[in-house]
Amino acid sequence: MITLASDFGTPYPAAMKGVLCQRTTARLVDIAHDFPRQDVRAAAFWLREVLPYFPPATHLVVIDPGVGTDRHALVIRAGEHVLVGPDNGVLCPVARRLAGDGALETHVIDETRLESVAPTGQVSGANARAISGPDGDAGPASNTFHGRDVFAPAAAGVHETDRDALADLEWLSPLEDCVELELPKAVLEDERARGEVLVVDGFGNVITNVPGRFLAGRDQLVVADHRIPVGETFAAVEPGERLATVGSHGYVELDVNRGRGDVAFGLEAGDRVVLEERETAREV
Amino acid sequence: MITLASDFGTPYPAAMKGVLCQRTTARLVDIAHDFPRQDVRAAAFWLREVLPYFPPATHLVVIDPGVGTDRHALVIRAGEHVLVGPDNGVLCPVARRLAGDGALETHVIDETRLESVAPTGQVSGANARAISGPDGDAGPASNTFHGRDVFAPAAAGVHETDRDALADLEWLSPLEDCVELELPKAVLEDERARGEVLVVDGFGNVITNVPGRFLAGRDQLVVADHRIPVGETFAAVEPGERLATVGSHGYVELDVNRGRGDVAFGLEAGDRVVLEERETAREV
Amino acid sequence: MITLASDFGTPYPAAMKGVLCQRTTARLVDIAHDFPRQDVRAAAFWLREVLPYFPPATHLVVIDPGVGTDRHALVIRAGEHVLVGPDNGVLCPVARRLAGDGALETHVIDETRLESVAPTGQVSGANARAISGPDGDAGPASNTFHGRDVFAPAAAGVHETDRDALADLEWLSPLEDCVELELPKAVLEDERARGEVLVVDGFGNVITNVPGRFLAGRDQLVVADHRIPVGETFAAVEPGERLATVGSHGYVELDVNRGRGDVAFGLEAGDRVVLEERETAREV
Repeated sequence: MITLASDFGTPYPAAMKGVLCQRTTARLVDIAHDFPRQDVRAAAFWLREVLPYFPPATHLVVIDPGVGTDRHALVIRAGEHVLVGPDNGVLCPVARRLAGDGALETHVIDETRLESVAPTGQVSGANARAISGPDGDAGPASNTFHGRDVFAPAAAGVHETDRDALADLEWLSPLEDCVELELPKAVLEDERARGEVLVVDGFGNVITNVPGRFLAGRDQLVVADHRIPVGETFAAVEPGERLATVGSHGYVELDVNRGRGDVAFGLEAGDRVVLEERETAREV
Repeated sequence: MITLASDFGTPYPAAMKGVLCQRTTARLVDIAHDFPRQDVRAAAFWLREVLPYFPPATHLVVIDPGVGTDRHALVIRAGEHVLVGPDNGVLCPVARRLAGDGALETHVIDETRLESVAPTGQVSGANARAISGPDGDAGPASNTFHGRDVFAPAAAGVHETDRDALADLEWLSPLEDCVELELPKAVLEDERARGEVLVVDGFGNVITNVPGRFLAGRDQLVVADHRIPVGETFAAVEPGERLATVGSHGYVELDVNRGRGDVAFGLEAGDRVVLEERETAREV
Repeated sequence: MITLASDFGTPYPAAMKGVLCQRTTARLVDIAHDFPRQDVRAAAFWLREVLPYFPPATHLVVIDPGVGTDRHALVIRAGEHVLVGPDNGVLCPVARRLAGDGALETHVIDETRLESVAPTGQVSGANARAISGPDGDAGPASNTFHGRDVFAPAAAGVHETDRDALADLEWLSPLEDCVELELPKAVLEDERARGEVLVVDGFGNVITNVPGRFLAGRDQLVVADHRIPVGETFAAVEPGERLATVGSHGYVELDVNRGRGDVAFGLEAGDRVVLEERETAREV
């Protein structure tokens, strides 16, 4: 199985699927292709939360604002899973989650040694991709669409290879250091949690990095001067009312029942949040 | 085959697919994941119109504004199809359509007896989901994402079970009464149809509940004081012009050729509509 | 393998998939269902650029502003691929690309001879589709959804048939002339390219019809009185800055690094563009 995730919208992912289908009969499953554009951190969060639900698979990830620069293209073995994508940190949080206590095995892709992608009927040289080369001397890869020209062929290649033999692929070399990305951690005190908004989902739910256990035993909280109830589910409050709950990823979410939490709280990804247990007396 | 329908947008459906792929090799086909948010009636209409085109399958439906409340989670056997989703009426119209003259067989899911969903690398207790439990004592299901934690495992389970043996699954119990939902019916008179807008599609076509046969033999109609032609196809009128036609579901649609009917007519889902055959003389 | 492309949004493509799954176990791959509504030229461009990356397949294409008129429904054999869709030109550019030096083999579909689509539980006559017929006399196809009622059954039928034996299908007849569509070509001079914007992609990249080789050896250009650098990749300029580059289809694109080229240049599909190499002295 190969999963696909990108910020491409359509129809670019279809070109990647064509390349994959040329080289493998693996089942293809879309994760999402509408991740926030070029937002490495948001994609890193979602991938960490979603991919662990899959059985062992190859995961093709193309959130790649540095395409065409000298950033590396990576293959990471993480437990029974293999991740393929750019070296910008987007693969790190999910790779660590998938590896559990195990070590990561990181390879860099030598794109000049990958079998190049040859679409049917391409007139050689008619629309040469290489700017500086002579007519007809198109390079093996575009400078702007490595999803199709580098990552998809690499994903097909590793998928067709035994996970334990990745090091034998001549277009992979071991890599010591890759770009790190750590999602920020909240600071928990007895009566206060200082955290950050990781992402806002499509419903407008504000997903923070405060672990859900901070809500244990509390029935209300103060957030940005709003006192809101803690509920086990959206329906704990009336439609249109705010609440704090533990979302499906285990973090505190700031939500509105049948409404948008981001609008009600005026919060977006990256904003700092402080959740406080303040006594009523102190409010007066 | 398992079909998936929700109002989740992305990437939540991918988590459901991961759970399904852990438990079954069934083919997965998306119906839509952008149904109007928490709009049970709209989803019920679309599912009734789309699912009958499929061969026998398991259909996973998660339009679930009551997630986390005590609403039941259902499995409904309807003819050769099996539907899995919340007990809020969303499954009723399509279940009746799929069952034809046959009876429905309705089961309630005991989620505590489902094999729980265990993502790779989840640190036990790190982000405990249960609010009231001690650290590490995460419950078997989140309170906000039953699509992943209840309905997907249930859909995989029933898909892997003989349709005639659903009653033998220890996590299913017979249910007598489920929440009913009937889409409203139009009232037809000789010269007048009183109906309602069921949904507006992505093109802006206004789909009413007036059966297409009301248009038989008519070549024009009055709707909200607009006299409009009846056409067999959008192209019966010039681009930008209004018309009434019989849509692909067999109902009267109020459309604009290459434009948006909802804007031109000022109508949205739930609005009442009266289609009249008025003689010109009465307009003066 | 059957690929699907349309401007339908959701959930209409799911009805096509149901019909396909009734008749074939072929793998289904979505190209896109959010092509610009009823924009034959944009779809023709994207299909020409994407489908050649696929292995031999049947490609179902429904961008069909003339649905329900007397426009033909086509099956085109192009090399090892088969295309199914309306006769409005949308299939032409990709068919020529896929056929390479080979000839196209074009058939017209006689929809009255296709096995008609019968959804489960449809009450005969309850919502008769035919306007002029008596109650219950629904025609074999809707007038507004040939994707489901004509093109999907045809795609399943040709997919299940040997490519060399399409002429033997009783519901296909040879067709001499079909509607032509040629994407406009740019005019290249030594110091000037006169072209057109073919499409704007979801990132806002302005894709012109000027072949990438026009940029060879140049390091800047004048476009609409803006002097902009030529770069091999977006990252050749600072975030927010304009550039011209060779896009992944081999054409000159007018882009903004991590921004929207269409907004910065004020260009949209169909606009004329002139790329000039002007010396600085002439600007003064």
